[in-house]
Amino acid sequence: MDSVLLGLAGVLGNDRVEVDGARVATVSRDESDLPPARPLAVVRPRHTQDVVAVVRACHDARLPLTARGGGTSLEGSSVPSVGAIVLDLSDLARVAQTSVEERLAVVEAGVVFDRLNERLRPTGLFFPPTPGGSADAATIGGMVATDAGGLYAVRYGGTRRWVRGLTVVTGDGTILHTGSRLPKTSTGVDLTQVFVGAEGTLGIVTEVTLGLCPVPEARQRAAWAFDDLGTACACVADLLLGIPDLAAVEVVDRGTVDLLRAGADGAGAPAGDLLLIEVHGRASECAAAIQAACDIASTFGARPVDGATDPWELRHRLTRAVRESAAPSGVVRTDAAVPLPRLAAFVAATQERAAARGRRLHVFGHAGLGILHFLAPLAGAGAWPLDEARDWKVALCVEATRQGGVVSGEHGVGLGNREAYLATAGATLPYLRALKSVFDPAGILNPGKIL
Amino acid sequence: MDSVLLGLAGVLGNDRVEVDGARVATVSRDESDLPPARPLAVVRPRHTQDVVAVVRACHDARLPLTARGGGTSLEGSSVPSVGAIVLDLSDLARVAQTSVEERLAVVEAGVVFDRLNERLRPTGLFFPPTPGGSADAATIGGMVATDAGGLYAVRYGGTRRWVRGLTVVTGDGTILHTGSRLPKTSTGVDLTQVFVGAEGTLGIVTEVTLGLCPVPEARQRAAWAFDDLGTACACVADLLLGIPDLAAVEVVDRGTVDLLRAGADGAGAPAGDLLLIEVHGRASECAAAIQAACDIASTFGARPVDGATDPWELRHRLTRAVRESAAPSGVVRTDAAVPLPRLAAFVAATQERAAARGRRLHVFGHAGLGILHFLAPLAGAGAWPLDEARDWKVALCVEATRQGGVVSGEHGVGLGNREAYLATAGATLPYLRALKSVFDPAGILNPGKIL
Repeated sequence: MDSVLLGLAGVLGNDRVEVDGARVATVSRDESDLPPARPLAVVRPRHTQDVVAVVRACHDARLPLTARGGGTSLEGSSVPSVGAIVLDLSDLARVAQTSVEERLAVVEAGVVFDRLNERLRPTGLFFPPTPGGSADAATIGGMVATDAGGLYAVRYGGTRRWVRGLTVVTGDGTILHTGSRLPKTSTGVDLTQVFVGAEGTLGIVTEVTLGLCPVPEARQRAAWAFDDLGTACACVADLLLGIPDLAAVEVVDRGTVDLLRAGADGAGAPAGDLLLIEVHGRASECAAAIQAACDIASTFGARPVDGATDPWELRHRLTRAVRESAAPSGVVRTDAAVPLPRLAAFVAATQERAAARGRRLHVFGHAGLGILHFLAPLAGAGAWPLDEARDWKVALCVEATRQGGVVSGEHGVGLGNREAYLATAGATLPYLRALKSVFDPAGILNPGKIL
Repeated sequence: MDSVLLGLAGVLGNDRVEVDGARVATVSRDESDLPPARPLAVVRPRHTQDVVAVVRACHDARLPLTARGGGTSLEGSSVPSVGAIVLDLSDLARVAQTSVEERLAVVEAGVVFDRLNERLRPTGLFFPPTPGGSADAATIGGMVATDAGGLYAVRYGGTRRWVRGLTVVTGDGTILHTGSRLPKTSTGVDLTQVFVGAEGTLGIVTEVTLGLCPVPEARQRAAWAFDDLGTACACVADLLLGIPDLAAVEVVDRGTVDLLRAGADGAGAPAGDLLLIEVHGRASECAAAIQAACDIASTFGARPVDGATDPWELRHRLTRAVRESAAPSGVVRTDAAVPLPRLAAFVAATQERAAARGRRLHVFGHAGLGILHFLAPLAGAGAWPLDEARDWKVALCVEATRQGGVVSGEHGVGLGNREAYLATAGATLPYLRALKSVFDPAGILNPGKIL
């Protein structure tokens, strides 16, 4: 074991520093299909002071350090940087405080999203951003690092909106306390905002002061099938104009649904290009909103399907079904987003181009936010060659940006969106590189990600 | 006229560069009672390219440059830096785009808050943060620069929440386009956030892409008088827990109300320590919320007063009444905020200390956000010596921060909160200074403000 690791084992304890075994294999990859990378070691701090010790050791030895929460990144944000030590924050899992009066929780970075909301249940409050299929593994620290969105972000916003303050360890081991307990302040440049979305490249978030939201009294769902996905997307804009209480607005293309229907757990899945909504509010409001939504959808030729379909559960099963259909190679996936008026044409054009090439393409997404996840399978029927899929992904992201959208709506840049990000960042790039130098002068924090 | 100004007159036009006259006098001060400072000149750009020309000229000549919108800062953010050129952005006043479907407006920095919302009226959308008595003069650029809050921030958040993207000119004249048209993205470090709240010290914001909110169907108000302000503040926490639709929660102390009642326009003003609320929602919800609020308030011994009192109008008149009572010296004013559970004790202790010194102290504020504006009159009955008031202000801000609050809830740091800010910024200070160097390498942008 190298001397840096021996030193860390001395400070953190021998069992907290591992250079081989199951944990090292686990942290070599994340939920993306990007190539794994074996780390030099995995280190498990127990509190912020441990993180300081690790960062200082890496800073002094110029060793890369990749922080990791649940490892649920879909763009490789948590794949270890080349030759990196992985800082596994799972054991920073304390909910230090909750305050119903202040509508806040102070939580360590390793607290899992679902665990936090279970813990909050008796308070009548919740942390709304809901990271789709990974809610049972994604950590608050990881959500802050990627400014994670999710199913309900159309109503409640992404993670950023709820972050009031942070404890962060910068690249030279300095502890910063940013923000406050308050929901609204105007005290100069808000450093909290600099770390949200930075994917552990500017600092390691160890504790988060999170705003919370009252749990809605009622939730109600509806789902429709359309003749084509473009029409479903066109309907989305009218729904958003007409129904202010929409909490989730999801679309799924028919090919993806068919894949699901053909599988073992396909029973009960509806057919066609789908649009699914969820409204939150008082019980009476929800019923009225669903009725109004049905009226709007019917003007687009929508056919109602089983309204009991849980869009979150459906989304979870869809991702699994697509990945199984693409085994063992996996998928190249997009997270680009476009403005709502562009959504229908963007989807239709992307589908047409894939069909013209004879390639299979799946798509679902948070249509209410213009966020689309296209999945290009790298194996199975209509598979894409890897290079072609990668080039296609970059071109799609560049085009989305040209139309007023972005490279990533909710997953982050990581490794998988890096090329498209660098191609679209323009004049901001030198400033972003300078920020990196300010907070991480030795360049040890998750190098090669984002920039 | 100096050669830099002659050069700018050549580019912008002679009538766009003034070195004396009424406009120079006007821009020497803002709405704070801080000492005015005569600028070298006032320059009025017509568009972003003009701003680039001015910034480049100042950068090359190492001349300070203070950007100015409506000049409504209450902490001296828009008082010219020593020897500065003032960049008056009033003529960047175009609403370039509105999109109902995307719930956004693209507006130039000089657009006035009220003008924007008047313009938006036919769309059924509005920009919610409402800067109290200066809504008819505050510009969107100024609101972005200070992350302005206001009456309705308890429900809708401050300016930051609504800013989707910016056009900014950095300190060397580079134009940056940050963010996008979308409400939720995850595309790396969000530079938009760095400029919000930076008070023109990191860049000059020339255009803003603003998210908008549907106008509520109904608004309803209630007001109560209490035996003391501490009890009114204690009631606030219960109201916030019980009434999710609260849009405004304001308190005013009895001494301030008495001042108003004694004045020329005092007719109809209620007596006592006041708590005023406004709820937004559907008409039926508003009525139920007001009834529930009355039930809660009555458990604190509240006496209902005229519910038609417009808290915004009242606030406007209060500020004027206090300032008139302190003429010609004005007031020293605080904008510190504390967590809600601390509010009642903080108010009571601050009032007691002032009374023990024989000093008059007025207080009102957005109690729902823990934001308190104490006003210490520098003339009239119970006047404070200037040095005593300044020291008291710093001590109050430091104490608020120690209790988990902040130096400024909604007005910004500027000059008036600078000492307290520097005393509380701790380990973040070197990083904030480094950020300044990144975006403004020559240190010309509003120097002496915040840092």
